[in-house]
Amino acid sequence: MRNFKEKPKVVIIGGGFGGLEAAKRLGNKPFEVILIDRKNHHTFQPLLYQVATAVLSPGEIASPIRRILHRYKNIEVILGEVTDFDLNRKAVKINACPESDDNRCEIFFDYLIVAAGAKHSYFGHEDWEELAPGLKTLEDALEIRRRLLFVFELAEREALLTGIQKPISFAIIGGGPTGVELAGAVAGIARRALAKDFKLIDTTKARVMLFEGASRILSSFDETLSQKAKKQLEDLGVEVYLNSFVKAVERGRILVNDEWIECSAVLWATGVSASPLGKKLGAPTDKVGRVLVNPDLSIPDHKNVFVIGDMAFVKMDNGNPVPGVAPAAIQMAQTVAENIIRDQKGKERKVFKYVDKGSMATIGRNKAIAEIGRIKLSGLIAWLTWLFVHLIFLIGFRNKVSVMIEWIWAYFTRERSARLITGDAEELLKTFASRQNLPTAKR
Amino acid sequence: MRNFKEKPKVVIIGGGFGGLEAAKRLGNKPFEVILIDRKNHHTFQPLLYQVATAVLSPGEIASPIRRILHRYKNIEVILGEVTDFDLNRKAVKINACPESDDNRCEIFFDYLIVAAGAKHSYFGHEDWEELAPGLKTLEDALEIRRRLLFVFELAEREALLTGIQKPISFAIIGGGPTGVELAGAVAGIARRALAKDFKLIDTTKARVMLFEGASRILSSFDETLSQKAKKQLEDLGVEVYLNSFVKAVERGRILVNDEWIECSAVLWATGVSASPLGKKLGAPTDKVGRVLVNPDLSIPDHKNVFVIGDMAFVKMDNGNPVPGVAPAAIQMAQTVAENIIRDQKGKERKVFKYVDKGSMATIGRNKAIAEIGRIKLSGLIAWLTWLFVHLIFLIGFRNKVSVMIEWIWAYFTRERSARLITGDAEELLKTFASRQNLPTAKR
Repeated sequence: MRNFKEKPKVVIIGGGFGGLEAAKRLGNKPFEVILIDRKNHHTFQPLLYQVATAVLSPGEIASPIRRILHRYKNIEVILGEVTDFDLNRKAVKINACPESDDNRCEIFFDYLIVAAGAKHSYFGHEDWEELAPGLKTLEDALEIRRRLLFVFELAEREALLTGIQKPISFAIIGGGPTGVELAGAVAGIARRALAKDFKLIDTTKARVMLFEGASRILSSFDETLSQKAKKQLEDLGVEVYLNSFVKAVERGRILVNDEWIECSAVLWATGVSASPLGKKLGAPTDKVGRVLVNPDLSIPDHKNVFVIGDMAFVKMDNGNPVPGVAPAAIQMAQTVAENIIRDQKGKERKVFKYVDKGSMATIGRNKAIAEIGRIKLSGLIAWLTWLFVHLIFLIGFRNKVSVMIEWIWAYFTRERSARLITGDAEELLKTFASRQNLPTAKR
Repeated sequence: MRNFKEKPKVVIIGGGFGGLEAAKRLGNKPFEVILIDRKNHHTFQPLLYQVATAVLSPGEIASPIRRILHRYKNIEVILGEVTDFDLNRKAVKINACPESDDNRCEIFFDYLIVAAGAKHSYFGHEDWEELAPGLKTLEDALEIRRRLLFVFELAEREALLTGIQKPISFAIIGGGPTGVELAGAVAGIARRALAKDFKLIDTTKARVMLFEGASRILSSFDETLSQKAKKQLEDLGVEVYLNSFVKAVERGRILVNDEWIECSAVLWATGVSASPLGKKLGAPTDKVGRVLVNPDLSIPDHKNVFVIGDMAFVKMDNGNPVPGVAPAAIQMAQTVAENIIRDQKGKERKVFKYVDKGSMATIGRNKAIAEIGRIKLSGLIAWLTWLFVHLIFLIGFRNKVSVMIEWIWAYFTRERSARLITGDAEELLKTFASRQNLPTAKR
């Protein structure tokens, strides 16, 4: 039986944009807040592609969650993975418990906010993930960086050993903001940053191909901006293929519509699949696993359980779902925190309403597009806006300064400062050598 | 048959201090130089302990070898692992070849410089490595960082779940410069950087123990400096145990002399074992695998094959071997490069002579020792000297600036900016939970 003199206990799952915002809104308020995350750090996902393309280092876009929230005395941060729920007992189960006694693996709550995010989906072909990694975590970004840089190293070595320069080509699958950003940045690496450092191969001849199933890239933007973005990508040397469906991914090649295309590395930037925790809540979900929440963001039958961010399915007035972007997660967190506070005051809950503050995508040096209400920007002005907004929202003063210096450095030197291949190089050498050659061996 | 009009081909194995220096000395000279390394980057090993203790990020102490050498048109850099030699055929074998044809796995040389370094040795107990990682590569540093930070996270979680704060203790094995630097930095993390961020546990109560088998730490320094260093460590809260031999390492505990001591994490900073490539050269080696080289640093029977750096055993005038430090490797590289140039000019080769320019070890904030000839420094002045020298020798202007900013930031805020636990957190959670508890379970 709950002691009503105790402060209500709010458990938040996930230290992304939504989870952090909810915690901050409840910080130093009369609640006992526990935030649980699988990582010890918050990752600023909008800049992950810059880690993947060796512009920034992991530490520059990530901060320990504990650090971000340390000034709130009522917030406890716990590293752990939530495995299941017992909503009737108001309990969250976490893995890897210190003792075998099962009860100790549970954390009890009065309110639960589930903000565990989403990852890429491979449309039922999860085996493609190894061949075509997506970009959701720092580890993903480092894996992509490793592969990108390794392709050039391998080609240089082959050129030395065999005298032949094999063609290099990169395939980026998905023409949304992440795919566009990756394509532009990969082209920049090949054409600028690496060109002088390789002596036997001509890195500027590397092909960068972007495949989009729809009839235009960045389809969430206005059509004129899509066209401008395509033009800007092409100026950077990216080959943009529209109406192009990837039907198979194999080692060293992909099947696009009906044509096999050889690729040295494949990056996946399409499809979304909400955290499997959504289904474990027992609430109805849509086909990508997002929970169909009530207008106040609680779930059916459990008024004290909320789902926010990429895990929540909420319709806007125009019938479309609220997009899976950081501002939406933050706004949902604000609504939920306010509703919890209102509950305690005996006030009626608010209904969530998404305010679209605009969207942006960057393409490369001096190149970007932005759509803010009716204002449509492209080129330098959009790029500067993009830089400014991302610096402002990046968490931590230290990171802001560091990223700004990196950007200034990269702009003037055209270098990439984080060009490290880490991990087990022996393994990588073996795996990649065989990977690269399989398509050849097949013929 | 070699065409004498061709430039002589010099193959260098290893992109550490020795290999890089040799390459630079032969850069833009009438040689064809190929540098082979398992990594794409040079690691500035003297600052690795700062990556392990979350002060610096990997990218700040590493630079792509290709980038460092890109201005020398006659130097080719190849990512690859050397597996064997055929010295009579003047060939180096590398792994993971692009084609199955074995000949293509060989790189031929006129001169060979082997500078593949050393790693930690576990005195025949290589199985201890997993339990007590050493510090030689960026991957090692990240593994140590992961474990250090994880110990605190786990303790906080246990405190939440069970209400009990388990004691936290770190054991650092080996009282040489690396062990001393690690011990000081770990104490700094526990006592300063993390203290405010953990709410349930008192991180300042974490024990940091340094075990040294000899009767004093930093035994390569003057005895008065050893004593000062010990005092400085103790001021930081480190427990220094002398005449203490580690006889066994198990999960969660170590056997020191005859006493089992519980440890949350164990770091290994003693013992050295030269690269196994030394033995493959067929030359005589000492008991840690260092090659007994001729006075000109070539190996017996092969005047065109040189071994330098941590892999070479050379006696100084006082009978002691040249220490395995960066300045020695650099000086050897200079001698070898000069000898190769002399060969081409028909001049007699030089004999290697080590010039000791002094040595330093840092202990913590404002704390260090330095011995330069007869000058002995300790405290703030030694610390400033240490900072200055390391900034000067750190490779890359970009890295110098970045590290300087990090140090200034860390000094004034007492924060650690690179406190990320990366890697598979699920795996880590499972492994660590069981690791931590085994000693308890045994009773």
